[in-house]
Amino acid sequence: MSALPRPSEDDLIARYLAPLAGPGGLGLRDDAAVLTPRPGHDLVLTTDAVVAGVHYFPDDPPASLAVKALGVNLSDLAAKGAAPRGFLLTLALSDAWEEGWLSAFCTGLGEMAARHGCPLLGGDTVRAAGPTLLSIAALGEVPAGRMVRRFTAQAGDELLVSGSIGDAALGLRLRRERDAPWAVAIGEAHRRHLADRYLHPRPRLALAPALAAHARAGMDVSDGLVGDLAKMLRASGCGAEVETAAVPLSAAAAAATAENPALLATALTGGDDYEILCAVPPAEVAALTARAAAAGVPLTRIGTVTGDRAPPRFRDRDGSPRRFDSGSFSHF
Amino acid sequence: MSALPRPSEDDLIARYLAPLAGPGGLGLRDDAAVLTPRPGHDLVLTTDAVVAGVHYFPDDPPASLAVKALGVNLSDLAAKGAAPRGFLLTLALSDAWEEGWLSAFCTGLGEMAARHGCPLLGGDTVRAAGPTLLSIAALGEVPAGRMVRRFTAQAGDELLVSGSIGDAALGLRLRRERDAPWAVAIGEAHRRHLADRYLHPRPRLALAPALAAHARAGMDVSDGLVGDLAKMLRASGCGAEVETAAVPLSAAAAAATAENPALLATALTGGDDYEILCAVPPAEVAALTARAAAAGVPLTRIGTVTGDRAPPRFRDRDGSPRRFDSGSFSHF
Repeated sequence: MSALPRPSEDDLIARYLAPLAGPGGLGLRDDAAVLTPRPGHDLVLTTDAVVAGVHYFPDDPPASLAVKALGVNLSDLAAKGAAPRGFLLTLALSDAWEEGWLSAFCTGLGEMAARHGCPLLGGDTVRAAGPTLLSIAALGEVPAGRMVRRFTAQAGDELLVSGSIGDAALGLRLRRERDAPWAVAIGEAHRRHLADRYLHPRPRLALAPALAAHARAGMDVSDGLVGDLAKMLRASGCGAEVETAAVPLSAAAAAATAENPALLATALTGGDDYEILCAVPPAEVAALTARAAAAGVPLTRIGTVTGDRAPPRFRDRDGSPRRFDSGSFSHF
Repeated sequence: MSALPRPSEDDLIARYLAPLAGPGGLGLRDDAAVLTPRPGHDLVLTTDAVVAGVHYFPDDPPASLAVKALGVNLSDLAAKGAAPRGFLLTLALSDAWEEGWLSAFCTGLGEMAARHGCPLLGGDTVRAAGPTLLSIAALGEVPAGRMVRRFTAQAGDELLVSGSIGDAALGLRLRRERDAPWAVAIGEAHRRHLADRYLHPRPRLALAPALAAHARAGMDVSDGLVGDLAKMLRASGCGAEVETAAVPLSAAAAAATAENPALLATALTGGDDYEILCAVPPAEVAALTARAAAAGVPLTRIGTVTGDRAPPRFRDRDGSPRRFDSGSFSHF
């Protein structure tokens, strides 16, 4: 099928993947890896897969795909308050894979892994017999008993989100409607920002220790703020009041929604933010916010957890209720 | 596409996967699981994927596929001397998936997980946009520092294998040449045995503690004895002398190779045995064999590790060398 002979599985592992291995990965020369959490720590485990044509565009740069495949897993670890220890990779390649693509993917993966101190521990390489699929299982550690749960929010907790919401969803819209009036109007720098946020998740690992110390509940925002907030509160048996105007937008997203107010719903319900949503006891908010600022991560208060079990209520600045059609984005 | 409405991802998880979750899986209500090895133990990690049409027949019974998907991972843990603690599952479903198939798969997976004390800890469910793919990351534990390595065999060690070799490869041949003279000649009971061994790996977990205590090196035989032995010895910088006639065959495989001697090469080079191959210092062989017998797992001596770095040499009963064409089976 391909013009050039391709390496065997063993060659591929030795050439492209073994250089990414940490000490626990034993140079990928074994069938398994070994890992031990530091004394007084629990291991935190998460797994997420991305599929060509479902979770990313097949023509996305391979190094960007590497950032996304590992980044979405690291984002889960960050939300749980965990520091990364390593990852396992299942690489299911389409029959049309090319060595240049693989080489660029592995270089990008190695850079992302090194940046976040999360070495490759092991993996499996198979024929997908369909679109390329990457499944990563990431392992992190938290002080024993301190993993930040999703289902433990309590009435009275304040709701905070990191960074800015909606950039990635608007970046995805840009890929599909490059010439829409709003896309033209916001200008090149804003377009670049939104496109970059769609391609490159920035896992908020710098926030993890502060979350483990101060947050009562948390999760990463991957399927849209509106839907993920509903998930966290349903799991916790609570409701919430959220001020729509308080949701932090980047300058680019603010420009886009100013041009086209309907885009606010895209921003708040679209996926791929990879920011942190957390519920924090009021007495802990100041300490958490200060530590987040010291770590260079903005945290913004967007609302309050309530004691009812109704879906979260969003209100506009004038107090009028706001409804969002699409509850949560699903790739499934 | 399907006749009946299918459950959403959340419903699917709640209905079919949450019942399989162990305590560390938090009822699959969180984005991550938590796990801590017992004091004085290391965690052992492995991952293996199976793809419809590549690693199994799409019409294999779904419960059998569950046994295979989890079994191939548990087999790796067993070879490393590890006791299972839990697993993560990536379930990438073809667009044609049906709820009945999924229900039967999950029931089989739950039974396999319960039988081996290996609960589901978490996972991800995605559209494969191609054939169904199952990737499992399994976690086990060994006494600290005792993981059985692949690359540590030494000259003078004895080579042993568990159970019987070649049944699964002959079972796969049977699927493809049901009416071959040998297949007809061996009779129904033998055919059933071979077919069952292809469908249902039996991870040798009962052997794990004895391996951690007595083996110098080991791996599971998944890609054919000839190729996997070469892999282990190459990684260890050693060679080997193997007596072909000493390789343990089941009554069914012995009957098949008696009917058609060319099938011996299939048995020794074909994949999917999921037996244990290990290198054992001579002084430890008696203790290991006794513990294996007590655990109900036969272990057979097939040869000796040598100090040269040549590929393993196989000899027939009369001492004449025997060559095998296909070194190792690869699904890649």
